[in-house]
Amino acid sequence: MKKHNFYAGPSILSEHTIKSTAAAVENFAGTGLSLLEVSHRSKEFIAVNDEARALVKELLEVPEGYEVLFLGGGASMQFCMLPFNLLEKKAAYLDTGTWASNAIKEAKFFGEVDVVASSKEANYSFIPKGFTVPENVDYFHFTSNNTIFGTQIRHEPDVKVRLTADMSSDIFSRPVDVSKYDVIYAGAQKNLAPAGVTLVIVRKDALGHVSRPIPSMLDYRTHVKKDSMFNTPPVLPVFAALQTLQWYKELGGIAVLEKKNKDKAALLYDEIDRNKLFKGTAVAEDRSLMNVCFVMNEEYKELEEEFSKFATAAGLVGIKGHRSVGGFRASLYNAMPKSSVEALTAAMKEFEKKH
Amino acid sequence: MKKHNFYAGPSILSEHTIKSTAAAVENFAGTGLSLLEVSHRSKEFIAVNDEARALVKELLEVPEGYEVLFLGGGASMQFCMLPFNLLEKKAAYLDTGTWASNAIKEAKFFGEVDVVASSKEANYSFIPKGFTVPENVDYFHFTSNNTIFGTQIRHEPDVKVRLTADMSSDIFSRPVDVSKYDVIYAGAQKNLAPAGVTLVIVRKDALGHVSRPIPSMLDYRTHVKKDSMFNTPPVLPVFAALQTLQWYKELGGIAVLEKKNKDKAALLYDEIDRNKLFKGTAVAEDRSLMNVCFVMNEEYKELEEEFSKFATAAGLVGIKGHRSVGGFRASLYNAMPKSSVEALTAAMKEFEKKH
Repeated sequence: MKKHNFYAGPSILSEHTIKSTAAAVENFAGTGLSLLEVSHRSKEFIAVNDEARALVKELLEVPEGYEVLFLGGGASMQFCMLPFNLLEKKAAYLDTGTWASNAIKEAKFFGEVDVVASSKEANYSFIPKGFTVPENVDYFHFTSNNTIFGTQIRHEPDVKVRLTADMSSDIFSRPVDVSKYDVIYAGAQKNLAPAGVTLVIVRKDALGHVSRPIPSMLDYRTHVKKDSMFNTPPVLPVFAALQTLQWYKELGGIAVLEKKNKDKAALLYDEIDRNKLFKGTAVAEDRSLMNVCFVMNEEYKELEEEFSKFATAAGLVGIKGHRSVGGFRASLYNAMPKSSVEALTAAMKEFEKKH
Repeated sequence: MKKHNFYAGPSILSEHTIKSTAAAVENFAGTGLSLLEVSHRSKEFIAVNDEARALVKELLEVPEGYEVLFLGGGASMQFCMLPFNLLEKKAAYLDTGTWASNAIKEAKFFGEVDVVASSKEANYSFIPKGFTVPENVDYFHFTSNNTIFGTQIRHEPDVKVRLTADMSSDIFSRPVDVSKYDVIYAGAQKNLAPAGVTLVIVRKDALGHVSRPIPSMLDYRTHVKKDSMFNTPPVLPVFAALQTLQWYKELGGIAVLEKKNKDKAALLYDEIDRNKLFKGTAVAEDRSLMNVCFVMNEEYKELEEEFSKFATAAGLVGIKGHRSVGGFRASLYNAMPKSSVEALTAAMKEFEKKH
């Protein structure tokens, strides 16, 4: 049976990425060796690393003065690496969910943190607006897409300080004006690659302004200096990232992906709003195009378990909602075909008919 | 043509590891999804993670009171993570090569470092002996195998302080008495898995004794508490590690591997000592069983480039020595079959006949 992968992350990757990675595990770039056992200093892998970084620059139109890094450790490592490098006295953070809140927790190890706004009291069902970012902070940080709560910030706040963002779950899903940012980071396991690599885009002149000594591995400058090859990079995830980026380019780039994403998300949100059994959990204007969270309407609450089984039987995988929200979550990352969203809406319609 | 993979790392993995990982990239554990796109919270992956950690414990006979972690970031991250967690005032380090020296550099960010001995002046061609480790240090650190210089410490120094070691390039190659150690770490890309995961074995009661605050991701206790799943682990490298560990168990365990490794290394060292064209670079008693470094004898120096081409033509990949030593390096990790070592010695004999 065809499986439809709605996991929140690690999550669906394109067939192109999967097929070409599987082939490289057998024989990488005609070397006669597996991608799993080839030196990162081989000319074949250096070419992969260079091309992947160049394609990130091309697709996101990264301006001069920035460097693109592929680091190990996950976005959670960036929660501490970012303040290690940028927080001298005080930073401002926007609290829009679990990951934003985790980033805040780590920043506090390095200095004062001004949480400019939070929607925690409303179980993060909306994006706070109208907040002010003080001008005396070292930087402002926000999470562009909240995987768990299904909210998204599609236009960066207009601030007068350095701007940084965790874009783990919506990078490459929409055009971003990188020139407004000093640091963008993203765990790869949503729109880029399998788990094990984190993309970091850093403005070089934002570095070197803190007084604390920084251990080499945690210092962005170390990785910038060594073209992201200071130590052995996660070879396979970087290779897979390149495959995804090549596929994005072939599809026509980020603007094309955004259009597809809007289309897919509208299909599902429309069904949620129409179907008498379900309702969305995020306020409409802040709904994420990547993670669609929904629950059973009050009067149908007892059907939750049954719909869950119904969906599984239809080949819909990974739609259980995070325990913080409950209900369901369908993640519609770039690689998700419209046909899989249609399979989900069809199941919702069919389930509605049964009740 | 059959390729013989002598890379120093990332390096040869067993055919079992490669074939089963390639198969899982197509369809993981019968899920109908690729290993690249499956949630780390799926029951199928949790089983992989648990079994891999249990097999490490079984194969290395890890005693009670220890935890086995699979972390991202590489051994270079451990160079700073270890002192972050264990260095309160002063630590003692043994300087036996490039990686030992890099570990020392990072430890200095956290406290005083007493380098008890170094063979740097002799281009790290031997392991210093007869040194004393002061009893007032928080721990002693050494590198059990020096990949670049081809030396190895097969019996841990007898010290009265906490013992820690970087075993990146010889873990699982020989039995180790884990009970003597407080922390053992190893980048996986030699004897375990593709690049992207680091094995850490930590004695739990060695933690929590430093006064500094430790950011969550850099605190071993965070990962111990969450069974090595605090954040998304590098899924594919962990899966591949499990395949390798299963293969080790099937072969008969670590003692069997050690016997094979001694046998393979003897074959090559004997040829180096016999062949008039070549000589080893490390002193005989400290020779590594994992990385065999050799150069042309003085009177045949000009043949180096020619032998290099001759070896490549014979399918011998990755035998160029590190620039710090020059000449050649053949890495004979666990997965290297004896037949590949024989292919190398045959090429050396044939090249000798030509000259």
